Amino acid sequence: MAEQIEQPGAGAGAPRVIVAGATGFAGALAAHLLWRHPSFELVAVTGRSELGRPLAELYPRYRVPLSVQELDTDGLASVDAAIVAYPHAAAAPTVAALREAGARVVDLSADFRLRSLETYERWYGPHPRPELIEQAVYGLTELHREQIAAAGLVANPGCYPTASVLALAPLARAGLIADVVIDAKQGISGAGRAFDEQTHLSMAGENILPYKVAAHRHTPEIEEQLAALGCDMRVQFQASLVPLDQGEMASCYVTPTRALGAEELRELYADAYAQEPFVEVAETPPGTRETVATNYCRLFAAADGHTGKVLVFSAIDNLWKGTSSQAVQNLNVMFGLGEGEGIA
Amino acid sequence: MAEQIEQPGAGAGAPRVIVAGATGFAGALAAHLLWRHPSFELVAVTGRSELGRPLAELYPRYRVPLSVQELDTDGLASVDAAIVAYPHAAAAPTVAALREAGARVVDLSADFRLRSLETYERWYGPHPRPELIEQAVYGLTELHREQIAAAGLVANPGCYPTASVLALAPLARAGLIADVVIDAKQGISGAGRAFDEQTHLSMAGENILPYKVAAHRHTPEIEEQLAALGCDMRVQFQASLVPLDQGEMASCYVTPTRALGAEELRELYADAYAQEPFVEVAETPPGTRETVATNYCRLFAAADGHTGKVLVFSAIDNLWKGTSSQAVQNLNVMFGLGEGEGIA
Amino acid sequence: MAEQIEQPGAGAGAPRVIVAGATGFAGALAAHLLWRHPSFELVAVTGRSELGRPLAELYPRYRVPLSVQELDTDGLASVDAAIVAYPHAAAAPTVAALREAGARVVDLSADFRLRSLETYERWYGPHPRPELIEQAVYGLTELHREQIAAAGLVANPGCYPTASVLALAPLARAGLIADVVIDAKQGISGAGRAFDEQTHLSMAGENILPYKVAAHRHTPEIEEQLAALGCDMRVQFQASLVPLDQGEMASCYVTPTRALGAEELRELYADAYAQEPFVEVAETPPGTRETVATNYCRLFAAADGHTGKVLVFSAIDNLWKGTSSQAVQNLNVMFGLGEGEGIA
Amino acid sequence: MAEQIEQPGAGAGAPRVIVAGATGFAGALAAHLLWRHPSFELVAVTGRSELGRPLAELYPRYRVPLSVQELDTDGLASVDAAIVAYPHAAAAPTVAALREAGARVVDLSADFRLRSLETYERWYGPHPRPELIEQAVYGLTELHREQIAAAGLVANPGCYPTASVLALAPLARAGLIADVVIDAKQGISGAGRAFDEQTHLSMAGENILPYKVAAHRHTPEIEEQLAALGCDMRVQFQASLVPLDQGEMASCYVTPTRALGAEELRELYADAYAQEPFVEVAETPPGTRETVATNYCRLFAAADGHTGKVLVFSAIDNLWKGTSSQAVQNLNVMFGLGEGEGIA
Repeated sequence: MAEQIEQPGAGAGAPRVIVAGATGFAGALAAHLLWRHPSFELVAVTGRSELGRPLAELYPRYRVPLSVQELDTDGLASVDAAIVAYPHAAAAPTVAALREAGARVVDLSADFRLRSLETYERWYGPHPRPELIEQAVYGLTELHREQIAAAGLVANPGCYPTASVLALAPLARAGLIADVVIDAKQGISGAGRAFDEQTHLSMAGENILPYKVAAHRHTPEIEEQLAALGCDMRVQFQASLVPLDQGEMASCYVTPTRALGAEELRELYADAYAQEPFVEVAETPPGTRETVATNYCRLFAAADGHTGKVLVFSAIDNLWKGTSSQAVQNLNVMFGLGEGEGIA
Repeated sequence: MAEQIEQPGAGAGAPRVIVAGATGFAGALAAHLLWRHPSFELVAVTGRSELGRPLAELYPRYRVPLSVQELDTDGLASVDAAIVAYPHAAAAPTVAALREAGARVVDLSADFRLRSLETYERWYGPHPRPELIEQAVYGLTELHREQIAAAGLVANPGCYPTASVLALAPLARAGLIADVVIDAKQGISGAGRAFDEQTHLSMAGENILPYKVAAHRHTPEIEEQLAALGCDMRVQFQASLVPLDQGEMASCYVTPTRALGAEELRELYADAYAQEPFVEVAETPPGTRETVATNYCRLFAAADGHTGKVLVFSAIDNLWKGTSSQAVQNLNVMFGLGEGEGIA
Repeated sequence: MAEQIEQPGAGAGAPRVIVAGATGFAGALAAHLLWRHPSFELVAVTGRSELGRPLAELYPRYRVPLSVQELDTDGLASVDAAIVAYPHAAAAPTVAALREAGARVVDLSADFRLRSLETYERWYGPHPRPELIEQAVYGLTELHREQIAAAGLVANPGCYPTASVLALAPLARAGLIADVVIDAKQGISGAGRAFDEQTHLSMAGENILPYKVAAHRHTPEIEEQLAALGCDMRVQFQASLVPLDQGEMASCYVTPTRALGAEELRELYADAYAQEPFVEVAETPPGTRETVATNYCRLFAAADGHTGKVLVFSAIDNLWKGTSSQAVQNLNVMFGLGEGEGIA
Repeated sequence: MAEQIEQPGAGAGAPRVIVAGATGFAGALAAHLLWRHPSFELVAVTGRSELGRPLAELYPRYRVPLSVQELDTDGLASVDAAIVAYPHAAAAPTVAALREAGARVVDLSADFRLRSLETYERWYGPHPRPELIEQAVYGLTELHREQIAAAGLVANPGCYPTASVLALAPLARAGLIADVVIDAKQGISGAGRAFDEQTHLSMAGENILPYKVAAHRHTPEIEEQLAALGCDMRVQFQASLVPLDQGEMASCYVTPTRALGAEELRELYADAYAQEPFVEVAETPPGTRETVATNYCRLFAAADGHTGKVLVFSAIDNLWKGTSSQAVQNLNVMFGLGEGEGIA
């Protein structure tokens, strides 16, 4: 299912990749990154609408000349890997077909992020392909790099869990979290290619809007990941939309299990991420702008002497590290490439 | 010290008002509101810079034709009232001069907001006129309306305390707050007429930036007000700048002292604000856009069944209800006028 | 067809007004302005969708508690006036029904703006009610105040013609225009409550987008109005969308019929608008921000000594002076009220 | 004057480059591009302020770890090339010192853009080093590629001339321009790291502001370049600021010397730019968003049958193709590298 257009990047023999669901924001960016990638060959972009239209027409700035085609599940034999960018529940069957054809998959949906089927079904409804859950590896690269390297199916994290879990992991691992409130803010690209009151510039502009109050589906995902680090608790997670395009800040307010000093905190974070190419521990509060169009997560932790709480601020680009560049980071790991190839 | 330009609004015999410090965002808006006010006569706008320039040149959209003049403390005899919009410490001496001349004052600075001199000096440094503290009334109209009506000196609240205390007062009064995290977001006008990295559109735009981490001076102000309602505790307050002009959201995460149901919460807020002309209890999470260029505070409270916490979202326009229109609301109360005159 | 909710503004005996098509941006703002108007009674808001929903739910910041109802053409007897905010072609039949019931109408659509049926049909297609064209008066208040005062049907101008014709009228009347290029820029509210690629913040934001190249329907409207002033010519009109909400700038590049000096130009504009309450001739180039949420048009004219051309910049709020506040301005004139009532 | 920090990109033996004036927007981006460049070694960044501060602190998102140092004109012997990002008049002496030391220079200022000293001095004042003018080549890569390849001093074009001349060159060369109006719009980054009323988000946001009316210094630069193509005329050039960060649109309204059809126009542009890697002739009007953070210029030309005029829209990123990535494009050409290295 490959088109005959010369790709600037990859040479002969590179793994052949497709993006399934390339018409949304996440899939389109993934296609852009793979099209320019030096070590993957992007052989097709598929969609459920806009068939036959060059992706470059839908997203001129991404300059991917391939045309959107239907996913031909019979022609997957020559496909080595796929990024799947369908909504939850729609993703699972496509993932299954790709897995059956032998392709390694990074799935951007929520379908394989949760280890617990029961939790999934409470938050998302019936799971279309529950038997695949156990082969899935949670794709927060920094936490699960080794399993990702060997995985056939990687469940790419939600953007909020990416920012939140990277922020909290050092504290969670050390058993230091007694309670946590996460107040996250995100630009409008987080709403995706949806055309409605939440995305119209004359409504979303000049606005700050909390949404999905006390009901955000990223909550159980954060809780499962923290639990896996030894911190089993209910997490207060709340998101707001703010008027920018790409950018996400998770502001975490931790009640620690014991008093924590500034120096101890500094060391905890420095040690945790010293070897990580895409996590920066900053010396001042990060702005999300510092991460726009990059795969970086930028963290700042502070002890509040007045309240005894620990504050951690975690900035990412929700479409990049929060979604599509992290998917490529995972693909790089899965295929033994340099982790930053095509995204740094 | 009056200029001879006809004001659209007030007739003869109206109280004569000045705005001291009219060249900043807050003072300029106060001058705008008073210039159009049907029951006050704006007789002068003063400043420490831009002397002689018509305010309409500095702020064309406010259309106040008066020219900026130096404050003539000898000519205050005929001034009935003043809004003072100087920075903290600079405000107190001007307030004192106005009080000595018999003018009633609404002070926008922090100088008289805190009842405790010790607390003031810990956060702000030496107080220039501590002897005036005890005559000051805290100007959150909805909480202190009666004292404001009789006051000679009203300390207009900070914008964050306005949004936060209105959000938390019903819970605080009922003794229901065991712990609280306030994550506030604000547009760039909150930084005032400051020209720097935090306000340049190419730096503040497309950005989310936490600032004054664990050190915001509005913290003790919120704590004092909650304590006055019977809730004496350390408050976790944190603010972030987001890329819009006017708008502020205080997202409050309350650990309640006992389990609270949705219905009880609904009634608590409905009862607390049923008679308030400028507090709206909404049925869905408010956007700050719904309050832009108004004196409204728009609240939404929710019980999170998952965590047991109570969430309260409080939206205001930081320059209006958060500062200048609340100052006019207070002036209205002080002079026995309709509370919404000139601001509704 | 009136609802029983007390209106803050108008007393008994005030003309009874409806807004037909109140769910779009223009109609909703018109309803907001009339609801607060001291001398009109807003008795109903109608729509073709969202029936039964309070307008305040759709547009919280406008705070109009009336619910959207279907237009009951049989119950119009008690309606004195209407603002009609339907798309072109849909507007004309509603306007006709209102006129037959004796109501005076300000129509926001293009249906009655053009005097020439032939021109209308070339740009818009078949006209549903051509027989009404001749009774319509073009509602650019500053140019046609007397006819508006007596009119039963006022065709409210397009936003671009409002800014452009006010900019060019002094030159046109004096026979000074040999050729003109109008480059107009507008915020996203100009696209109305349309949910698509042009309004999504992640697409419209950080963008400058020329649209309807060489084909904008406001072109013939501008040409007809200039012709009526004695300037019969083809006008080059081009619009671009820029990332803000409300605001419009018409930048006019005039090749004059003879050399024009700065002083002559200054006097020409000063004289033309000296008596106009809502046209400001500025001494520096206006920003659209200076007109946001006002009925003002702010003009600046300059002679370019280098090229010999005359430049005129005209700033308005496209939703206010460009649409809804101008409609109220016209209603004020039609009912003999102060021209600025409810909009200044 | 090199620092000992490992650069991700260039290997040993790569040309050694410095950026002089790296603290402004243009210089900082140039440093970012060179730091990541595979074939240049960035050995120093210099400035006149912020000495000793890592550039990564001033511009975190650019991640250039080098510290700002004073330009050591004695230590230039080992420097092969420089990008100079000083204001006009300040640039020339630095350029001269670099040239004397044997370095090849791309100068971002206006100092060497104009061939005519007289024109320069009329618009900019006395020229500090007029003797260098004749060795300078105008750095619009697409027009002067061959001379640039051999040049010691390249005068990088202004951002407006870049967009405008690329838009008009095909028509100018064919003798088809009788008259032209250029209405350009630009994001706030065009104002640079200046902190004032024009850049404060609460003033620049929600605004459209024409500036330097009939007096923009890019006018003579455009005129000289068009004249060099055979089109000697006065150009009407006008710019406006619009509320975004990076993005620039030159909307060109050409009165042609003879009637031009759509097909002829299409071919003219297709032929002119068929071989250009960084000029895209689009089939629909471009949005500036399509060029953000790229070196592309995206053009669309249309014949207006109604007026007979020809419209050309030219979109670039003012900081990239308009300034810094074009500078690197020129450096690539000067050193015989792939023209898109490090910028595509």
